[in-house]
Amino acid sequence: MIPDLNDSVLDHIAIAVNSIDVAKKTYEDLGFTFSEEREVVKEQGVTTAFAKIDHTANIELLEPYGENGPIHKYLDKKGPGVHHLCFRVDDVKETCADLKKKGYILLNEEPVKGAHNCLVNFIHPKSTGGVLIEVSQAQGDH
Amino acid sequence: MIPDLNDSVLDHIAIAVNSIDVAKKTYEDLGFTFSEEREVVKEQGVTTAFAKIDHTANIELLEPYGENGPIHKYLDKKGPGVHHLCFRVDDVKETCADLKKKGYILLNEEPVKGAHNCLVNFIHPKSTGGVLIEVSQAQGDH
Repeated sequence: MIPDLNDSVLDHIAIAVNSIDVAKKTYEDLGFTFSEEREVVKEQGVTTAFAKIDHTANIELLEPYGENGPIHKYLDKKGPGVHHLCFRVDDVKETCADLKKKGYILLNEEPVKGAHNCLVNFIHPKSTGGVLIEVSQAQGDH
Repeated sequence: MIPDLNDSVLDHIAIAVNSIDVAKKTYEDLGFTFSEEREVVKEQGVTTAFAKIDHTANIELLEPYGENGPIHKYLDKKGPGVHHLCFRVDDVKETCADLKKKGYILLNEEPVKGAHNCLVNFIHPKSTGGVLIEVSQAQGDH
């Protein structure tokens, strides 16, 4: 993944919140607009809401969906706050193979489905100095 | 602050790290390039290093400078991780007056000097659902 300076490589900043309806007010007060869409990603145990930062990058609010999902556990342990950063890649399998070779710990053996039907994987915060990093490939790229 | 979709309103994602030299390797492995410049912001007790995400947004690594600064305390308490998000505003005083009216708690009564000689203030995470948010005005704008 080489940052393309014509187009942000940042896909989104994900923020764990107890309630999307409550939390989005802050970002609306700062001038952001959320799309009406609320996408449930059952595999990840979250409901998501997106606001654009620029043409391509977003703020993503993550509200727990169902019981005992990862965001539930995160909120219990750490409280609300920035949960992960997501960068776009052309080929998530290739990126993950490369990261593995370099010694990074990935959360999933194979990419999984993320919001917006992307193929995603996560780099463990232990490998990155404390930041959960998602790498995401838009489906249809390949 | 209304997001200008031609130009990101995100100025930077700031990540608290124990050592810039160690931590920047992760982002270099993901394809980012750090400028050689290391700016010490004594007022904030940090050394900073920047890597561009796109034309205007950056990853900022924050390493403690001196003793007992805010990043020192943050690392002691929470360990390394995303420390704050910074959004650009045209007029930081006007933005802060507006935020105050809306009930947001600001860290400083008046804006203070940030990296790159910007005028900055911070919104307390208590007001934002857990995220420390910096608002920053490039000097010379006004």
